[in-house]
Amino acid sequence: MKATPLRLRTDSADFETAFQARLHWSADTDAAIEQRVADILADVQQRGDAAVLEYTQRFDGLAATEMHALELTAAELKAAFDGLPDVQRQALQAAAERVRRYHEAQKKASGESWSYRDEDGTLLGQKVTPLDRVGIYVPGGKAAYPSSVLMNAIPAQVAGVGEIIMVVPTPQGAKNALVLAAAHVAGVHRAFTIGGAQAVAALAYGTQTVPKVDKITGPGNAYVASAKKRVFGTVGIDMIAGPSEILVLADGSTPAEWVAMDLFSQAEHDELAQSILLSPDAAYLDAVQREIDRLLPEMPRAGIIAKSLNDRGALILTRDMEEACAISNRIAPEHLEVSSQDPQRWEPLLRHAGAIFLGAYTSESLGDYCAGPNHVLPTSGTARFSSPLGVYDFQKRSSLIEVSKAGAQTLGRIASVLAHGEGLQGHARAAEMRLKD
Amino acid sequence: MKATPLRLRTDSADFETAFQARLHWSADTDAAIEQRVADILADVQQRGDAAVLEYTQRFDGLAATEMHALELTAAELKAAFDGLPDVQRQALQAAAERVRRYHEAQKKASGESWSYRDEDGTLLGQKVTPLDRVGIYVPGGKAAYPSSVLMNAIPAQVAGVGEIIMVVPTPQGAKNALVLAAAHVAGVHRAFTIGGAQAVAALAYGTQTVPKVDKITGPGNAYVASAKKRVFGTVGIDMIAGPSEILVLADGSTPAEWVAMDLFSQAEHDELAQSILLSPDAAYLDAVQREIDRLLPEMPRAGIIAKSLNDRGALILTRDMEEACAISNRIAPEHLEVSSQDPQRWEPLLRHAGAIFLGAYTSESLGDYCAGPNHVLPTSGTARFSSPLGVYDFQKRSSLIEVSKAGAQTLGRIASVLAHGEGLQGHARAAEMRLKD
Repeated sequence: MKATPLRLRTDSADFETAFQARLHWSADTDAAIEQRVADILADVQQRGDAAVLEYTQRFDGLAATEMHALELTAAELKAAFDGLPDVQRQALQAAAERVRRYHEAQKKASGESWSYRDEDGTLLGQKVTPLDRVGIYVPGGKAAYPSSVLMNAIPAQVAGVGEIIMVVPTPQGAKNALVLAAAHVAGVHRAFTIGGAQAVAALAYGTQTVPKVDKITGPGNAYVASAKKRVFGTVGIDMIAGPSEILVLADGSTPAEWVAMDLFSQAEHDELAQSILLSPDAAYLDAVQREIDRLLPEMPRAGIIAKSLNDRGALILTRDMEEACAISNRIAPEHLEVSSQDPQRWEPLLRHAGAIFLGAYTSESLGDYCAGPNHVLPTSGTARFSSPLGVYDFQKRSSLIEVSKAGAQTLGRIASVLAHGEGLQGHARAAEMRLKD
Repeated sequence: MKATPLRLRTDSADFETAFQARLHWSADTDAAIEQRVADILADVQQRGDAAVLEYTQRFDGLAATEMHALELTAAELKAAFDGLPDVQRQALQAAAERVRRYHEAQKKASGESWSYRDEDGTLLGQKVTPLDRVGIYVPGGKAAYPSSVLMNAIPAQVAGVGEIIMVVPTPQGAKNALVLAAAHVAGVHRAFTIGGAQAVAALAYGTQTVPKVDKITGPGNAYVASAKKRVFGTVGIDMIAGPSEILVLADGSTPAEWVAMDLFSQAEHDELAQSILLSPDAAYLDAVQREIDRLLPEMPRAGIIAKSLNDRGALILTRDMEEACAISNRIAPEHLEVSSQDPQRWEPLLRHAGAIFLGAYTSESLGDYCAGPNHVLPTSGTARFSSPLGVYDFQKRSSLIEVSKAGAQTLGRIASVLAHGEGLQGHARAAEMRLKD
């Protein structure tokens, strides 16, 4: 098996075409899936628990006859945690502590209420409050990631969300002890072993047993993504994730095997995942390719890695690091490694990225698990306009306005003129009445 | 003509049913509109300017043969501003200054980059950057609101967005001088007289003349809303607004005519708008109804007001102010007036609202135009999970991580354990390689 990412060079005449072709990925969803999902949502909205039980039996092979049989108790989550090998229990706890610390700093920096007063006593501000109740979708089966439980539940907990409800499908009853343990560590309040569009529907509309939430976060397959998009508006949702991507900008100073393994760590997620390396050093690109060749046979997921790198990967020779940074801004990657001796020189040039990993020691995998920042990041170029999952996703803001009697005299005159200009006389008169005394 | 909002009392046995029925509003969109919009989007994506020109001719009666004819120059915007009567020019400028000041405070409070270092030198933080380019949709025709231009463009400008593109349909060529003047005041960079789904498509995909943006904000009709929802993911969008609503909590101390006019100021927007008053004082509700009867004939938009109040309005007698606050939290209103002598007593009880107007002098209309906070607010109960439009909507965040060599030793061990637990050996080895030296 060989993994040979496409070699490109920016000074070649056909670079632009080849580069665009490699980046291309379409998020179009299957019309058949969309219809199935619409039917499931309508059914759960109407029949509640009964519908969820039926779908769970049909899709996951769980023969429960009432919803409480599909609820995981707090004791069960704790038992899963207590039953882990020491080293896993400690790693989970250490990761959770670091993630919590980072998100507490985030809340302090950008998530507190504020206000000020005008000279005339008018108060203006914004009150920041947590959501009452959120649902966290955790995929089951082969892509069951306990780290995602931490990354979704901890920001919600730090935000002060009153109730965090986790759903995780357990096909044929197979429970993932690390996922359950992570739910315990992360402070999940209730958990149900349901999944798919039926779980999203249960959270969005509520059933007799599953409480209706205000927002649903967390990754899932095409059915889950389609269901989330459809219930958006009834509840809030986080972003709809595409395939995961890494972009590495390398000045050639990082050991080539480290960078090769970083490309693998993205590629092993999924055949659609994308790993791209940009460097002005042609010999370094050759060295990384040699490490790819050497290391690939050792990888348990070599097949997935090879397909991802062959179909979607690229090693791109740039004129210099500045050009590499400019290309990175065009891609707006989910994960961006600046594998340079002088990362702080390049960081200010990087405008769009989900997370920026600076310096040779900062492998993406450290960020994925335990550095502290969230690993739920905008994919497919959406970092141009969206942000990592954070405490702010579990808070909302209300404007606060308390106009003083003196303030009403100034503001009322302005509002009256503009309201008349818009033909809204009720607005104008409401302002004018406050001018009277 | 009579306007008689439904009278309810919370101590009545059928309150819950009647209350739910009055609140009910469905956001379902018309399948025929959705298909038309999908076709227009696909056409503009494929044919660019030519398609936009055709639709603009067909829907707005503008016979332009090339897109530059539909661009408003900076000189034209300035001329509109210079041509306004003094009082309007000053009001617009005063409103813009107050809105700018508020959003600058908002940026300072919650929109700045931050970072901290661990003891081992590892840097963690978040970089906050403005979007490169945004599109602002401004409705034309009868609902052309210059204040909405300020409320959308100023937060973008304060955020530091590089280019703000406004689109505003001008059916039959009728331009609204106040809208153009507001664009000048708010710092809009380019403006096109196009609207509907074709304008949303031009902004989302870009054409030969209209540059592709990163996010589209601003209100519009069903076609615009459907188009925005459909391009979401390709670009960011703000919320999809439903009918506007006001909830007034009154302890009976505010002149009844003020509150009656505040209810009118919401109702006059739209027959679907909703105005609800909650008070523990039955005599006060009677007094407000008398003011409604007295004031309605004086209102130019009496027909719209009457239909809105009759079909969707309510005056609700509560047991006490605490109960009024609890009901308000269930509704999560867009605009919430606390018309009380002691508004600061009730404010902490109010958990969900787009904007909270405290005290008798704080009419919603002051907030709509010039108090400072944004008037683009979450409707239809979405204040449970979303926020006023703000500087944060025109910024995005990137996580920053720079792991020190010492930090890589601690973090690498944790990441390795968790990655093996998830079956992701590439992740584990990328972390382990950094342990080596």
